[in-house]
Amino acid sequence: MGAPRAERLAELVAAEGLDQLIVGDLVRPGDSGLDAISNSRWLTGFTGTSGLSVVGPQTRLFITDFRYTERAEHEVEESFDRVIAKSKLMPELASHLGGRVGFDDALTSVANLHKLTEAVAGDVELVATTGLVERLRRIKEETEVASIAEASRLTDDAYEFVLVGGLAGRTERDVAGAALARIRELGAEPSFRAIVAAGANGAQPHAEPSEREIAAGELVVWDMGAQLDGYCSDCTRTYAAGEPGDDAREVYELVRRAQAEALEAIRPGVGGAEADEVARAIIRDGGHGAEFGHGLGHGVGLEVHEGPRLGQRSDDELAAGDVVTVEPGVYVAGRFGVRIEDLVVVTPDGHRNLSSLPKELTIV
Amino acid sequence: MGAPRAERLAELVAAEGLDQLIVGDLVRPGDSGLDAISNSRWLTGFTGTSGLSVVGPQTRLFITDFRYTERAEHEVEESFDRVIAKSKLMPELASHLGGRVGFDDALTSVANLHKLTEAVAGDVELVATTGLVERLRRIKEETEVASIAEASRLTDDAYEFVLVGGLAGRTERDVAGAALARIRELGAEPSFRAIVAAGANGAQPHAEPSEREIAAGELVVWDMGAQLDGYCSDCTRTYAAGEPGDDAREVYELVRRAQAEALEAIRPGVGGAEADEVARAIIRDGGHGAEFGHGLGHGVGLEVHEGPRLGQRSDDELAAGDVVTVEPGVYVAGRFGVRIEDLVVVTPDGHRNLSSLPKELTIV
Repeated sequence: MGAPRAERLAELVAAEGLDQLIVGDLVRPGDSGLDAISNSRWLTGFTGTSGLSVVGPQTRLFITDFRYTERAEHEVEESFDRVIAKSKLMPELASHLGGRVGFDDALTSVANLHKLTEAVAGDVELVATTGLVERLRRIKEETEVASIAEASRLTDDAYEFVLVGGLAGRTERDVAGAALARIRELGAEPSFRAIVAAGANGAQPHAEPSEREIAAGELVVWDMGAQLDGYCSDCTRTYAAGEPGDDAREVYELVRRAQAEALEAIRPGVGGAEADEVARAIIRDGGHGAEFGHGLGHGVGLEVHEGPRLGQRSDDELAAGDVVTVEPGVYVAGRFGVRIEDLVVVTPDGHRNLSSLPKELTIV
Repeated sequence: MGAPRAERLAELVAAEGLDQLIVGDLVRPGDSGLDAISNSRWLTGFTGTSGLSVVGPQTRLFITDFRYTERAEHEVEESFDRVIAKSKLMPELASHLGGRVGFDDALTSVANLHKLTEAVAGDVELVATTGLVERLRRIKEETEVASIAEASRLTDDAYEFVLVGGLAGRTERDVAGAALARIRELGAEPSFRAIVAAGANGAQPHAEPSEREIAAGELVVWDMGAQLDGYCSDCTRTYAAGEPGDDAREVYELVRRAQAEALEAIRPGVGGAEADEVARAIIRDGGHGAEFGHGLGHGVGLEVHEGPRLGQRSDDELAAGDVVTVEPGVYVAGRFGVRIEDLVVVTPDGHRNLSSLPKELTIV
């Protein structure tokens, strides 16, 4: 995969006319920040929640706090100088900056930009950038694809394991809990809180599993994923807990066809909006266009939601090495929902599907 | 507890000379944002991840997207007008703003402030504020304390349940997994990923549970909590998996004494720095001052980390209704760690301990 990540990033930093780029969470440094943490992890290997990096042609610096001294020692890529901040990360960071310094304006709070501006030396120029690390992170290396594929395989196993016990008569929460336990038993963590939504709950794309029992004949939207070595998977299947009604069958068939056609379209050079339209046109022609209220899909990697985006307003174009979901859905308010989601890696001549579960309507 | 939350906030907004305040995530609107989500939930009752509110003397507005139409209908406090954004939340938000409008500079990214500035009408003045909602949220109502107390009770149960199986010979990850399963069985979710760190791993305050087996005689730092109705608990105990060495016993005793004395100091009017110093002085006198590298504690509520802070650089002063942790620790690099943490609510005449587990050295 060519040069090490820090080297590729330093080249990009230089190409943007910058001396240095700050990588990490400048919203809540030392605490949370999803994308920001993933950028740090991708760049340095560090898995803690408190770390800031500075990268440039002349700079490889990693700053953390006392809590992570040992972890930084073990994990952070060796080309980086490690610094343990005496107190907070921000003043320590400021003392290492020089020249034209990029910060990510989507990952920096207004308050912290103000603090940083006050703290840096007079000759430092802070420059807003957006998504430089994300641009590199988007195209997955082989080892990254392997981790995502394995996380996906574990997830498929968890579906099959739980389905053996049937769905009707169990609560949504019980099904979600059983799947979570299986994912952990297989050595992974969930990549997000699973959605198990039966009947009318399935019409809410982001319902939380409830204590409601799944009734015979209901459709069950079941969306979950695993995280392994930091890398996420994401899958949705919609099962029928016994014979469903004709309208549910019809919508299921429509979504299944839209998903299959959209999947066919996934290859390098196809636009995120273009792929979305393949599925959307089919669902629109089927009379359910207004009930497909989200985009077709999104990238998956260290984050369960990252670039590129597949949707009506996406400007992204697919490239080999992208890992994306393909997940059209139809949500019939007050009645039921259907969503079918595969995870695929874009290859030079098309794509490879990382999800192996069948997509014909399965009556459990 | 007096006026409804939105009314109290509107008064605070007016007192700050503002017409409106934006509440919610202006870092990644429509997606994540811990504190920001908690502010929305506290204010409106909404539990989804995509919601922005606007509050002022004349304004009660809640904006979400298509995915959460039904949830907003059920959950959002009735004094709020609900708006489903046609596409993204930010343009919708901009169209409802008027006058002097506060935004939280810690929860707004540089990029989104720029977008918002471009999108609002010419007579809107955007004003940076910090932590107005957090200021109200910090003092818990009785129902909030009841939820935290119950989450704490569940956590205590999970410790006891798992301890029955002993610790030596099990992996850290197995112990963490068993505790997680018990918390879920009791109807809650974990409030964060549990830490179970044996021997030298315990010297890393934020170690992740590993596949390493706990050996006889090792100290095990075990930090976990539950989340119930959105409210978190947080507890740490350090157990000995069989007879520990004399130095481990000695450090345990030192931390236990520091924790007990600091606990005694918790009452309204005491400073966060002052309480910290009670524990720190004892640990310093015991010769381990350099090995207590974090603050004494932090507030807990909808977030597992929120205000007030108890630490050397804290300016906060405790008040009745605060719920805080008291958790000194000593970390002997390469050997072992000890941390003991209780969760307490500050009462008019002192405090009430929400953690009931014993603190004498327990040999499992």
